[in-house]
Amino acid sequence: MDRGAIAFWTGTGANVGTLTTDSGALLNTPFSVSARFEPQPAAPASTPEELLAAACASDYTMTLAERLQASGHPAYTLRTEARVQLVRPSGYWEIPAIRIHCSADVPAIEDKEFLAIAHAARRHGPLLRSLRADIVLTVSLETMPGREWGISVQ
Amino acid sequence: MDRGAIAFWTGTGANVGTLTTDSGALLNTPFSVSARFEPQPAAPASTPEELLAAACASDYTMTLAERLQASGHPAYTLRTEARVQLVRPSGYWEIPAIRIHCSADVPAIEDKEFLAIAHAARRHGPLLRSLRADIVLTVSLETMPGREWGISVQ
Repeated sequence: MDRGAIAFWTGTGANVGTLTTDSGALLNTPFSVSARFEPQPAAPASTPEELLAAACASDYTMTLAERLQASGHPAYTLRTEARVQLVRPSGYWEIPAIRIHCSADVPAIEDKEFLAIAHAARRHGPLLRSLRADIVLTVSLETMPGREWGISVQ
Repeated sequence: MDRGAIAFWTGTGANVGTLTTDSGALLNTPFSVSARFEPQPAAPASTPEELLAAACASDYTMTLAERLQASGHPAYTLRTEARVQLVRPSGYWEIPAIRIHCSADVPAIEDKEFLAIAHAARRHGPLLRSLRADIVLTVSLETMPGREWGISVQ
């Protein structure tokens, strides 16, 4: 089974291309050099890094939801933000790390069980496991406001 | 510098969430378990794998465009398709490989020079370098119809 996307680029000098995915979620969606590498892009456009962030956020969310469900504690809501770092320490741009924070509303679950499941989900997401970059994961239970756990490993 | 996205999920049993990226390229865009794991999804939706494919396709395209430009042979058009494999050989889903095919229209470039640049772009894309999965790259020059080179390495 595979899932795909097509990038199309014309050498007009504008350094903008378009992306279309199998599902049509992206449909001739612009991506650009300016949006990728400049802090203040000329025009809003997608980038490889924000798409990777979306892939990581959805992978972690689906994996965690499935594991919470299987444990008998289905989530009420999960909100996962992923941020892909892009830096140029020495000539080449690189992605050293990806930060993921998941805020979960899960009724009647013990802290310890939630942390164990959140940790396992990090290691079992098919997409997260295919990455070389460090994954820095933090989670919080909305039923325990003010508390947040860092469970980064790699 | 970082680029990000947010996944939101509610435990309604529908196994569908929504994704929004920094740029708005994805804006409350549905992703689903069905679209991810079933050959014939119930409804079209995005998946982590097609988003990774879009990230790979745009990363390779931008890197190749920049290197062709720098070599004095700017591309007229580049069309890059990326396909992310998702298989379950033994209980867990995994991403063993990503296939990328780039079809390039580059005026007046020698085969050998094009291949060298296409190969280098594969190894220098910031996003491709952050992946653990194998990258299987093939390229073709539209000005040489019927010829295709496999330059996979890893």
